[in-house]
Amino acid sequence: MIIDVHGHYTTAPAALERWRTRQVDAIGSGAPAPRASELRIGDDELRESIERNQLRLMRERGVDVTLFSPRASFMAHHIGDFQVSSAWAAICNELCYRASCLFPAHFVPAAMLPQSPGVDPATCIPELVRCVETFGNVAVNLNPDPSGGHWNAPPLWDRHWYPLYEKLVEYDVPAMIHVSTSCNPAFHTTGAHYLNADTTAFMQCVTSDLFRDFPTLRFVIPHGGGAVPYHWGRFRGLAQELERPPLAEQVLRNLFFDTCVYHQPGIDLLTRVIPVDNILFASEMIGAVRGIDPETGHHFDDTKRYIEAAHIDAGDRRKIYETNARRVYPRLDAHLRARHP
Amino acid sequence: MIIDVHGHYTTAPAALERWRTRQVDAIGSGAPAPRASELRIGDDELRESIERNQLRLMRERGVDVTLFSPRASFMAHHIGDFQVSSAWAAICNELCYRASCLFPAHFVPAAMLPQSPGVDPATCIPELVRCVETFGNVAVNLNPDPSGGHWNAPPLWDRHWYPLYEKLVEYDVPAMIHVSTSCNPAFHTTGAHYLNADTTAFMQCVTSDLFRDFPTLRFVIPHGGGAVPYHWGRFRGLAQELERPPLAEQVLRNLFFDTCVYHQPGIDLLTRVIPVDNILFASEMIGAVRGIDPETGHHFDDTKRYIEAAHIDAGDRRKIYETNARRVYPRLDAHLRARHP
Repeated sequence: MIIDVHGHYTTAPAALERWRTRQVDAIGSGAPAPRASELRIGDDELRESIERNQLRLMRERGVDVTLFSPRASFMAHHIGDFQVSSAWAAICNELCYRASCLFPAHFVPAAMLPQSPGVDPATCIPELVRCVETFGNVAVNLNPDPSGGHWNAPPLWDRHWYPLYEKLVEYDVPAMIHVSTSCNPAFHTTGAHYLNADTTAFMQCVTSDLFRDFPTLRFVIPHGGGAVPYHWGRFRGLAQELERPPLAEQVLRNLFFDTCVYHQPGIDLLTRVIPVDNILFASEMIGAVRGIDPETGHHFDDTKRYIEAAHIDAGDRRKIYETNARRVYPRLDAHLRARHP
Repeated sequence: MIIDVHGHYTTAPAALERWRTRQVDAIGSGAPAPRASELRIGDDELRESIERNQLRLMRERGVDVTLFSPRASFMAHHIGDFQVSSAWAAICNELCYRASCLFPAHFVPAAMLPQSPGVDPATCIPELVRCVETFGNVAVNLNPDPSGGHWNAPPLWDRHWYPLYEKLVEYDVPAMIHVSTSCNPAFHTTGAHYLNADTTAFMQCVTSDLFRDFPTLRFVIPHGGGAVPYHWGRFRGLAQELERPPLAEQVLRNLFFDTCVYHQPGIDLLTRVIPVDNILFASEMIGAVRGIDPETGHHFDDTKRYIEAAHIDAGDRRKIYETNARRVYPRLDAHLRARHP
């Protein structure tokens, strides 16, 4: 079985974006925000938006299951206040849940959280509870910078985040550390902000005792870990310099890297440097880079091709494709076992 | 000849830091700032601080010449105003110049600029002129984020920076894009902020017409280009997605990556992915990562070992070690030719 741990619903029907535009336009205008019930997307429309896109590509590429969360760049936690984020997260999470019901063999939902700049992350717990208990979500996306590129939230090791971690640990649900759109002109969203956030989050973990306080908390660092594997020697050296334990002891029990790296040399480096138990197959397909690589004739985001060509054996490939994900996401494993007992 | 294009004077006598502390303490206190003349570092002391450190390691490792600029993390442009940065840059640049006079065969000076948050970069031109014309500097370090991690300066493609670029082009002097200490608790200085800045600066160039406006302007992206080479497929794909020209045409005439990547797999990726003409040997030795790698028994920052072991031929190695640097830094080439006619 091949599990893609990093998929977003980037192809939702246009009604979703229209609803969001109305919601955003209403902020500070005095006009009432649109009600959730005003968004109507039928099952046929939802089914079609996925069948023609993600599911088509999964079939072409031979991917069985995708962890499916709301579109990352649309989370835009910096827009409006908690009420705005809350209404928006509820709608987006419900759509991913519905997708998982329509294609139960292929999509398993992961949640976005209703984060808002300066707001206590504990306010996200009710939506987390709803997503896990009612919708069967097996993971969440946690934004370390809800400001969208101003980076004024406390680092991930700060107690600010602890109430959320307590709930994640209770549910045994991992968090993918994923920022959203940058509203800082210095940072291109998918070309700088995403990768910077991955590197930043990793280093926040290295410099802290977060995983001593939460030994079973698990973070997935997307986009192949940002700059981290390429600079693995630097990070090993910095950990030593800072008199932290070696990375293998200190963070590799809790941190995992996905394979959203869009060329062969990058995947070759990732699989050479990072222990195979810490690598999770993912593509973030129909995401930041949708085109075909003229050098290969294949989609940049067809990451399975790179894993197939990497110098690893069949056992390692199986870990990356399936068994690591089942271990890191126990609720995914339970879900798959229930379907295929 | 082996040229290290990225060295900082990280081992200056303690009097320098004491002077700086007095300067910083005086800000807003009503006390007068210390005068430059109050800093006294004799030639013997200066010589010793380099002979025992950088020069010793250069001899051990077989490096001939280092481009030597003030300590990057101490630039701290976010502290105080333009007057503070101006006095501090003048002192630091003079020390690097003196080092180059004491060891003319081994050190060639590169300047820091007296940048200050919110201040027009044109104010840096007089120090740039002094450093190039009086001190023979062959390069400068340009900080794209003088705020120290708040990233509120305009992107590098903004006309805000153009007066400085005009002077750099006039002198044919390249700029290394190098941030300083992060005062944002989200970003570890050397583990996140430096690498993020490298990635950010690259993407600012990709999304802009900066090098159409300044076809001969040259930037060196340090630390192996941050996350860029590891994600080269992503960047190629993003350029295509954004309908920009291919990276080779659009930015590789103007952007160069150094080899400050502290393990073999990273250097192997760099030399596999980035055209050899765009790679410049560097170590940033006695910098962020000073320890010995227990996996190799050698210093993490002994990057020459990785270049020696990389799968490239002697011609490519010579480009990385010497001829690229002579091409990218014409004033360095002129200096070396004058010494060895």
